[in-house]
Amino acid sequence: MTTTSPDSKIPKPGTSDPKIIDGRAIAKTLTARVAEGVRAFHAETGATPGLAVVLVGNDPASEVYVRNKALQTHRAGMRSFMHMLPETTGEAELLDLVARLNADPAIHGILVQLPLPKQIDPVRVTNAIAPEKDVDGLGEVNAGRLALGIPGIVPCTPLGCLLLLRSVHADMRGKHAVVIGASNLVGKPMGQLLLAENCTVSIAHIDTRDPKGLAREGDILVVATGRRALVQGDWIRPGATIIDVGITRVPAADGKTRLAGDVDFDAAYPIAGHITPVPGGVGPMTIACLLHNTLHAAQLGAGLDRSGLLDDLRSESAS
Amino acid sequence: MTTTSPDSKIPKPGTSDPKIIDGRAIAKTLTARVAEGVRAFHAETGATPGLAVVLVGNDPASEVYVRNKALQTHRAGMRSFMHMLPETTGEAELLDLVARLNADPAIHGILVQLPLPKQIDPVRVTNAIAPEKDVDGLGEVNAGRLALGIPGIVPCTPLGCLLLLRSVHADMRGKHAVVIGASNLVGKPMGQLLLAENCTVSIAHIDTRDPKGLAREGDILVVATGRRALVQGDWIRPGATIIDVGITRVPAADGKTRLAGDVDFDAAYPIAGHITPVPGGVGPMTIACLLHNTLHAAQLGAGLDRSGLLDDLRSESAS
Repeated sequence: MTTTSPDSKIPKPGTSDPKIIDGRAIAKTLTARVAEGVRAFHAETGATPGLAVVLVGNDPASEVYVRNKALQTHRAGMRSFMHMLPETTGEAELLDLVARLNADPAIHGILVQLPLPKQIDPVRVTNAIAPEKDVDGLGEVNAGRLALGIPGIVPCTPLGCLLLLRSVHADMRGKHAVVIGASNLVGKPMGQLLLAENCTVSIAHIDTRDPKGLAREGDILVVATGRRALVQGDWIRPGATIIDVGITRVPAADGKTRLAGDVDFDAAYPIAGHITPVPGGVGPMTIACLLHNTLHAAQLGAGLDRSGLLDDLRSESAS
Repeated sequence: MTTTSPDSKIPKPGTSDPKIIDGRAIAKTLTARVAEGVRAFHAETGATPGLAVVLVGNDPASEVYVRNKALQTHRAGMRSFMHMLPETTGEAELLDLVARLNADPAIHGILVQLPLPKQIDPVRVTNAIAPEKDVDGLGEVNAGRLALGIPGIVPCTPLGCLLLLRSVHADMRGKHAVVIGASNLVGKPMGQLLLAENCTVSIAHIDTRDPKGLAREGDILVVATGRRALVQGDWIRPGATIIDVGITRVPAADGKTRLAGDVDFDAAYPIAGHITPVPGGVGPMTIACLLHNTLHAAQLGAGLDRSGLLDDLRSESAS
């Protein structure tokens, strides 16, 4: 993840509009790379990477997510295992399933979809996943490795954001990166990834007194609050790169719904240097990074080091 | 660590000069609390907390540190075990010692003094310490717990800085905390502790373009760079709280040496609201926090929850 192949044939994102970071295109490229990697892994080891996705309960959004994850895993040439448990499942029963998946050599990645029903402690379950199979990167060992700069599995959404940033920044050293939102899922690991890129990092959240003023100092602005259109044009430093992690479902004119981000895109677009749309920005990257993490876990489990998979996605242009 | 006893009899720091945060006084108070806690632990369980300190090689500074740690552990009523190994010790040999200490029920805390000789990987050794005995809090599991907000063992120096901050701030919510230095030992865990206090957190480092401008935005400024007198008066926001982690040995007028911090104290003092001296600020807190962590590890190992030990050190005055 540190070099760029000079002869990369990766289509540059946003060829139609260089301001827009095209998450769909970059995710497609990454997914194709993973599929190639899966074939190479099979050729080398005779094995096929396998991902187990566990869903507890009947949350409709979660059902859509896990089905989509399973489908894309399968399409990338991997084995996909779904475990759908009833809402009444006890914690001990779920921990028992996780233990069996940990011990199963056909499973290289385990993902327990959150949120879990209230009788189950999500921290206990997440930390029960073997660190080398924790492809969501949300357990304490992988969180610690990220914090300490030790190789590990990086959570999918912030990893996706990092790849989008790399598509337009060959080098982020010394840039001021402002992250709005301090969740364990996005904001905090994002801050650590940006520190590892040698950015100056500021993290704002609900208690921040002047988030607009801080945001306006960001050469890079990552917004992950879940508050639709929180970030207006006057929050943005001219020329900044804007990564919008927010996905809120809002009513559309035709009576259906559409997805909206945490950034007011129309207001931000004229001021930003680069910006991700919603949908079509961070969203598609999250699943692509899950596929990447699953292959990577399988490679590490087989003693192979193929961490260069993401290198080709780095921009060649200084920025 | 979240409540304040209203009848606390803890002497307030800096009664002579309320601007100066008196690390020696606060460390003394904490050490006395630990000694009380050790007696209570013995009364309750019949056992005595034990700390094993491992030194490899003959670095004179490290020899002083471990001797001091062992002595203070003993003075607090705990058992202290020293393992001093030659410079030529191999990694396997050290890992074997760590494994034996992990398995030893008389040992509640294990500290391997850094730096280690070059034939030994410090990351591998640190991560070999059982997380529940990792009283330096530097292993990946405790780093992950800190990052995720799960209870764990917090590294001694940033924990000491936090206690110094709490001695003058009843509530840090919404304050802008600027940390200069992004090491695994201090800067990064410090940032996470300040986020957990609901501060807006900015982390600057060697690549930061305008560290002075960023520092000047800090209501709280923690400096841990090892660059003597880096922070001058014009780096400081009027009224800010300054925590100086730097300790550099410099020649003194009498031909001896003295300790100097990363902050030019004389220049900073008139502008700061509160400031730690060097020596007598962060330094004494580090060992006191090691004693605290060892007792805390013993308590957790015995199934006791006494995490309120640090509560009394919190200021009662709003600030």
